[in-house]
Amino acid sequence: VNTGRGEAAAPVPAAQSTTIKNKVLLPVERLEGFCEAVLRNAGLNPYNARLVAESLVFADLRGIGSHGVTRLSGYLGRIRAGVMNLDPAMTIEADFPASALLNAKNGLGQIAGMKAMALAMEKARTQGIGFVGVKESNHFGTAAFFAMKALPHDMIGLVATNASPAMAPYGAKTPLLGTNPLAVAIPAALQKPIVLDMATSLVARGKIRLASLTGQKIPLGWALDAEGKPTEEAKAALAGSLEPIAGPKGAGLSLVIDLLCGVLTGSTLTGEVKNLVTDNSGAAKTGHTFAAINVAMFLDPGEFKANIDRVILRIKSLPSTVEGSSIYLPGEIEANLETKRRMEGIPLSVEVLAGLSELAERYKVPKL
Amino acid sequence: VNTGRGEAAAPVPAAQSTTIKNKVLLPVERLEGFCEAVLRNAGLNPYNARLVAESLVFADLRGIGSHGVTRLSGYLGRIRAGVMNLDPAMTIEADFPASALLNAKNGLGQIAGMKAMALAMEKARTQGIGFVGVKESNHFGTAAFFAMKALPHDMIGLVATNASPAMAPYGAKTPLLGTNPLAVAIPAALQKPIVLDMATSLVARGKIRLASLTGQKIPLGWALDAEGKPTEEAKAALAGSLEPIAGPKGAGLSLVIDLLCGVLTGSTLTGEVKNLVTDNSGAAKTGHTFAAINVAMFLDPGEFKANIDRVILRIKSLPSTVEGSSIYLPGEIEANLETKRRMEGIPLSVEVLAGLSELAERYKVPKL
Repeated sequence: VNTGRGEAAAPVPAAQSTTIKNKVLLPVERLEGFCEAVLRNAGLNPYNARLVAESLVFADLRGIGSHGVTRLSGYLGRIRAGVMNLDPAMTIEADFPASALLNAKNGLGQIAGMKAMALAMEKARTQGIGFVGVKESNHFGTAAFFAMKALPHDMIGLVATNASPAMAPYGAKTPLLGTNPLAVAIPAALQKPIVLDMATSLVARGKIRLASLTGQKIPLGWALDAEGKPTEEAKAALAGSLEPIAGPKGAGLSLVIDLLCGVLTGSTLTGEVKNLVTDNSGAAKTGHTFAAINVAMFLDPGEFKANIDRVILRIKSLPSTVEGSSIYLPGEIEANLETKRRMEGIPLSVEVLAGLSELAERYKVPKL
Repeated sequence: VNTGRGEAAAPVPAAQSTTIKNKVLLPVERLEGFCEAVLRNAGLNPYNARLVAESLVFADLRGIGSHGVTRLSGYLGRIRAGVMNLDPAMTIEADFPASALLNAKNGLGQIAGMKAMALAMEKARTQGIGFVGVKESNHFGTAAFFAMKALPHDMIGLVATNASPAMAPYGAKTPLLGTNPLAVAIPAALQKPIVLDMATSLVARGKIRLASLTGQKIPLGWALDAEGKPTEEAKAALAGSLEPIAGPKGAGLSLVIDLLCGVLTGSTLTGEVKNLVTDNSGAAKTGHTFAAINVAMFLDPGEFKANIDRVILRIKSLPSTVEGSSIYLPGEIEANLETKRRMEGIPLSVEVLAGLSELAERYKVPKL
């Protein structure tokens, strides 16, 4: 068992999985390999299959089960429905010294996201900052996955995406805005990097979808049903709308992210992105934006990262609201969980595992 | 009276002011001229005196009284205390094709802000995006004032600043983070531009300061007192800490803005910005960031602005949560108020007016 104090723990043998409290613990490599095999058999090329598998398992490693391997079935459903392009011939539609517009040609969001983030970093290297918009894309997993790619290059990564309607504009009844998340990753020296990845809704819709999948109730205040009434039922919430963070502020942030990701990229107007799971009537037309800020343009990266460490330690040494409990920085709990799960394996519920078994049969891959 | 339906209204004669419900209505030009005269007599050069006056009156025009002329006394207090530079010889410490770092040399934030926003736009014109950090600055008024400068150039403006400690990091008791606001301005065609300007605290501390000044209570949930208990007393709240929007999300956003504005610019570490009003022990060392995105790099600005109009009209035509009431976009209420107040004058409370009278005496300027 990983104690969280840096002591080595015995990893779960690769060929074996452990069952705890209705959950099965799966070794990371095995889960990643499974997703990769399914995606390859679905027709993705090896590089892209590996990339998408890594993106999904990254989410499960960090405790974001809503964006993990549970999404695989939705992706494959879109591919089977013929509304997502397996091997997109992406094009750069606009190219300025510090910015570019990438047409994802309706491929998986992860494929476009990796290319766009790399392009933003390449531009930031010489220009100071790089900004890349992506049009005609699809769900890309978690925003943090791409923002964190900036960290080893001593850059700050900023990533946003729009999403299908889930949240009403402030003062309106009808969901038109997506949960439109924003991620910012900032490198540290010896401490864990700061990684903020937040939906502009009070909770990510994926959490409600996961609750719906596992039959759990949701707390009052998370969402409204289709009649605009507060609800504890996950299914009713999925048919209604999510509450934004802090009313007009969250709804405003979500709108602004949509205008940048959807309207500025020429992908869609607000309210037109198609839902990954429930709407296979055509291309999703998701839009994203990726930015990289080169720390070296302003100050020595070593000095910057040492200063980030100082801030982290300063915050962690403040008196806690709950006596004796630790203060965690954005991304710290996720990083701790990732360390633990790389050692112990990733816990998946039997329901999620049953879904993966169906995929195994359909795509002729050995079951997990 | 301005009916809000575009009919002409008789403006208040420039030499006259009207009293309503303990408020005095002052013509815009007169209030602006007064602030300018005070700032010139305090030693600012004519250009900077006009700029700061415009920035303060801009806030009052748009209903952000917390950032309006009530701030003048705080600015002048810092100048008298010798902790703010009247005529800063600003330097550009780093200059990349798409980014720059400006040292404000402890001048008023408005002076550095105007230069930095102009520089960001100049870079965006050729590079696609421009990003300018500002170090060793001071309070700059509202962030929207600068973000909106991008609008006539068919650019999107993004502005953030850090501020003195007012809010505890998530899980901590001690205020260390500022209310660190973020503004985004997006141009429209015939509709009003989208202008989001939000503190990462549930409310701006300026609102609590204004309540403290006028002796009003604040709603429970806005703030905690120094013991970490919810309070309705504005003075106790000023001694305690503000609540962030949505707990860890707002606290995380505030931290990330501080790391960009304060640590990346090399201005300060988190928690070290000095309070404008209560701490004249040295330079405030506020940091800001300014970004401009050139719409033309991705698509025709006319097409983009027409699409923003379409989104605005789509949202405004949704069913409202309160039957018969309008749906407002970010910045719309502020723009409506600005139109009205340019016609009717700006309402100032007798308390605020008394404060301005003291300044009139001190700086030998005719009273309002």
